[in-house]
Amino acid sequence: MANQTVAVVGTGVIGNGWIARMLASGYDVVATDPAEGAEGRMRHAVEQSWAYVEELGLADGASKDRLTFAGSIEEAVRDADFIQENVPEREDLKQMVLKEIDQYAKPDALIGSSTSGIMPTELQENLQHPERIVVAHPFHPVYILPLVEVVGGKQTTKENIANAKNFYEGMGMSVLHVRNEIEGHIADRLIEAIWRESLHIVNEGIATTEEVDKAFTHGAGMRYAQYGPFLTFHLAGGEGGMRHMLKQFGPALKKPWTKLEAPELTDELYEKVVEGCEQQSNGMTMSELDQNRNEFLVKLYELVQEYWPQEKNKTQV
Amino acid sequence: MANQTVAVVGTGVIGNGWIARMLASGYDVVATDPAEGAEGRMRHAVEQSWAYVEELGLADGASKDRLTFAGSIEEAVRDADFIQENVPEREDLKQMVLKEIDQYAKPDALIGSSTSGIMPTELQENLQHPERIVVAHPFHPVYILPLVEVVGGKQTTKENIANAKNFYEGMGMSVLHVRNEIEGHIADRLIEAIWRESLHIVNEGIATTEEVDKAFTHGAGMRYAQYGPFLTFHLAGGEGGMRHMLKQFGPALKKPWTKLEAPELTDELYEKVVEGCEQQSNGMTMSELDQNRNEFLVKLYELVQEYWPQEKNKTQV
Repeated sequence: MANQTVAVVGTGVIGNGWIARMLASGYDVVATDPAEGAEGRMRHAVEQSWAYVEELGLADGASKDRLTFAGSIEEAVRDADFIQENVPEREDLKQMVLKEIDQYAKPDALIGSSTSGIMPTELQENLQHPERIVVAHPFHPVYILPLVEVVGGKQTTKENIANAKNFYEGMGMSVLHVRNEIEGHIADRLIEAIWRESLHIVNEGIATTEEVDKAFTHGAGMRYAQYGPFLTFHLAGGEGGMRHMLKQFGPALKKPWTKLEAPELTDELYEKVVEGCEQQSNGMTMSELDQNRNEFLVKLYELVQEYWPQEKNKTQV
Repeated sequence: MANQTVAVVGTGVIGNGWIARMLASGYDVVATDPAEGAEGRMRHAVEQSWAYVEELGLADGASKDRLTFAGSIEEAVRDADFIQENVPEREDLKQMVLKEIDQYAKPDALIGSSTSGIMPTELQENLQHPERIVVAHPFHPVYILPLVEVVGGKQTTKENIANAKNFYEGMGMSVLHVRNEIEGHIADRLIEAIWRESLHIVNEGIATTEEVDKAFTHGAGMRYAQYGPFLTFHLAGGEGGMRHMLKQFGPALKKPWTKLEAPELTDELYEKVVEGCEQQSNGMTMSELDQNRNEFLVKLYELVQEYWPQEKNKTQV
């Protein structure tokens, strides 16, 4: 790993996040961005993030000095084994930049795009080597949060998806292979649903932004770092788990509890959800899942109280 | 506080959660539930939760022995200063039980209903003392998560809302006063939006329940215990905060990134959201908010890795 070179094209918040993670993983990193002052902002961002990546643990030989800024895409990518693209979220711009990367990169270099919404098949059109393009969508701050969604397009080879998976896992990330291209991949669809419902609530004068945030941070938001929406409801069903829960709360899907319409709760969907939850419990009983949640939540609650903005304020007063 | 008595009507998962919190706060608690074996299950649940409430801190004199099980609603509520109702989520049943509570309780006893979806105005119809009814909707596990949504109905007095607020805050809870009655209050509208989008994703075969959960727990779900949807996006805007973010990502509201349609991003909504975020930052600069987030996330990540079900499994192997 340590004698491989990675390139980063586009050094905004996401690009700089990748750079910190890549340097911490022991890579040489070459970055480029045409914006005025980009190099200075990049080096400042890496400085700012370094204490956190150090606390999480550096690879052997990792150093923030192994970072070079290049004056062009050609110069940045020509020696790279892996290239991460993070230019602004406009399809025409991404296609243009990827075409240039494709042209100058080694033919077998892998290319990951950080796009949050564009499907990879659209990104790989008109490239000489479309088979090495994947979407690799990370979450801010990239140097701390482990998730990366990896999505292949119609022309991406299985081998390159596997290589990309290995590359990101080698940097301590949790890869979610999205097997079907869809707008917003998976995570952003959930985030966007929360966001839109939140905007409706503020728009209709029901609550302020602070109240909406509190409704999340002091309740359900504390549960979601550990168990996702499905396992949370699996537990809400008590000993009967999701099987019971869907019977008890299934009818709520018809109620106006959000502006979002639910799918029909068919037998097939019912079985998919129940069996999925049972499988992902990984052999833990309901009671073990329950205790595991409680142990985590008590520690999280003790931790997060120091970090809620309104508590910070109290300390200052 | 310690010489006040509280009553709990309905001892399912939520009722038993309330009992543990109330006992830990130093109250005498009288509970009732007509189901066969309810007392045994209640005492078992309190035993199971006691280690966690102890870790979070007991009030002076708090003891799990200060719990009585009563054979009827009349017996449970007649001496109570505060009554929490937690019967199953059916409007006719809740109305019937609340009528009985209202009949036997002291006229000035406060009554909180744990309903997740029903509006308080509907619950206070036909009561002798409707002015002392509030919705007080908690989050499971009630003895750990601090949030409680307090909603008054048309006939609830301001004084009683204030008294309810004091009561719940006295038990270490974070009260969110929902000023406008709406189906699902606030938190469950956000939870339900996530849930419905998750069901759509599984229903359409895009991903499994485990993959949807991972998309949340390893990324955005880690952010939401600390900052809610608004403050998270405020930070995503960099130095320009929400003001910049809405300009950059506002157009995504028109994209099919979820099945949920967004409201029109009017100037008025824009200003509400921007000013809301600036206010709730409580005087912290963007850079301070950013560092505060990073410090929290690093600690959370170190903590949560021990508690993810798939990691538990690894340890067992």
